[in-house]
Amino acid sequence: MRFATLATPAGPRASVQAGEFYIDLQATDPSLPSNVKTILEAQGSLDSKIEAAKSNPKAVKVAVSEAKLHAPVIDPQKIICVGLNYRDHAIECNLPIPRDPVLFNKFNNTLIGHGENIIHPKVSVKVDYEAELVLVIGKTGRYIPESQAQSYVAGYAVGHDVSARDWQMEKDGKQWMAGKTFDTFAPIGPVLVTADEVKDPHHLNISLRLNGKTMQNSNTKQFIFNIPQMVSYISQIVTLMPGDIIFTGTPPGIGNALTPQVFLKPGDVTEVEIEGLGVLKNTVVGE
Amino acid sequence: MRFATLATPAGPRASVQAGEFYIDLQATDPSLPSNVKTILEAQGSLDSKIEAAKSNPKAVKVAVSEAKLHAPVIDPQKIICVGLNYRDHAIECNLPIPRDPVLFNKFNNTLIGHGENIIHPKVSVKVDYEAELVLVIGKTGRYIPESQAQSYVAGYAVGHDVSARDWQMEKDGKQWMAGKTFDTFAPIGPVLVTADEVKDPHHLNISLRLNGKTMQNSNTKQFIFNIPQMVSYISQIVTLMPGDIIFTGTPPGIGNALTPQVFLKPGDVTEVEIEGLGVLKNTVVGE
Repeated sequence: MRFATLATPAGPRASVQAGEFYIDLQATDPSLPSNVKTILEAQGSLDSKIEAAKSNPKAVKVAVSEAKLHAPVIDPQKIICVGLNYRDHAIECNLPIPRDPVLFNKFNNTLIGHGENIIHPKVSVKVDYEAELVLVIGKTGRYIPESQAQSYVAGYAVGHDVSARDWQMEKDGKQWMAGKTFDTFAPIGPVLVTADEVKDPHHLNISLRLNGKTMQNSNTKQFIFNIPQMVSYISQIVTLMPGDIIFTGTPPGIGNALTPQVFLKPGDVTEVEIEGLGVLKNTVVGE
Repeated sequence: MRFATLATPAGPRASVQAGEFYIDLQATDPSLPSNVKTILEAQGSLDSKIEAAKSNPKAVKVAVSEAKLHAPVIDPQKIICVGLNYRDHAIECNLPIPRDPVLFNKFNNTLIGHGENIIHPKVSVKVDYEAELVLVIGKTGRYIPESQAQSYVAGYAVGHDVSARDWQMEKDGKQWMAGKTFDTFAPIGPVLVTADEVKDPHHLNISLRLNGKTMQNSNTKQFIFNIPQMVSYISQIVTLMPGDIIFTGTPPGIGNALTPQVFLKPGDVTEVEIEGLGVLKNTVVGE
């Protein structure tokens, strides 16, 4: 299934995609939740009702082409990001291949959906793009063995790890968080694609276009740490929960590493595309 | 006022302290919220009802000495931490005085209350303590001028920034997050003391006792960046929201900097005390 969160006058509404439409689940069946995280927490027990809503001839629906979207999950307990997880990207940054996943965070103020605007903060002159595959966790776990980690992934989405390089790299203490957690710096979507619909998440083409020009173009087979390794490693630190989001790193081609450097500016349009998951399109606007 | 969040069989319940008791607000007046963040979001509009509940002779209450507590705010959008914010602590760490606040995060899996247990993760051998003053944000703001920043602080609490030094300092990438966000690594409480009850937050004694022995003993007048500077700086990056928590850094005396080093082990008892805000006591337990 493909879940999206609709922005409606009544607030955010969980929906499921049916062909060219998103079905508003609670508007169609009031017993269904309005929140995608709540659906994940239900551990599949709502699937038959969701399927019924999908095929309900009286379903409340909105055309995919006209829908206003939030991120598929709007209220994760955690947004955990893995840095330097494509071998070629570590090399382009002149950084050694890490021995363990390098972890940092974004807060929920960063979450926006497909079609929403990325706000270019007036305090940065080095706003950069990063195409990323996003994992959404489906069940609670700690010390998850690699052999079981895949079963903790509810699904996948296209993500964009927007990064203010001046705030990420040039401050005392060298902590990346500030540069990663500006408002609107985590576009995700358009949809969360459940794991059963993704044949091999370690073999997906991933690319980013800036104003139509391809800037990043790689494949998740380039991961240094694969999905079970990332999930298992992170679960040594935190109890993973349904709805938790993991950004899995970006491939080569970021603007900061180009000669001359390329940074985002108001009016730019970014499109991140991942095979089978869709295209995440956002426009950069000034403050 | 002094707000606490009670752990009750019915779930977390916002309460206000009245002498030796915590008044369960929603149990006393069903029109009041069960969540402290919701009270903050109400911007003072519930104060008269809360005062009425406090003096209600039929108030549902529990003795302070017997109450089971969560952190005063259980669901902040952000837990932002400022590192190296006491001059003497930066010196004991052999680190230069930062030119800007050094920022990192904890996720909400870290939040526990006074009296709850700090879980010593089996994957760390360097779990350390850090006494900290915690700010709780009271209203929404971005680009807050320093001259107005104090009005965005709803109140103060005693905090403990538990830190696994091996995961904070010894990993490739040198990102502190992993060492800071283990489950239970952010004890806060017992209460949130509203700003009107704190005469001068820049002149509060702060100390930490480990098994009764004083390990840290300083005063918030040692801040490198004062509260308006921290709030204003952070609000350049994120939109601050009611309930957001800011850890303001720790004074000298951390275990990692002692000779020989001192680390927390199961059975240890930590008490953080801040003048006028109370004592936050927690026991370390093994996994």
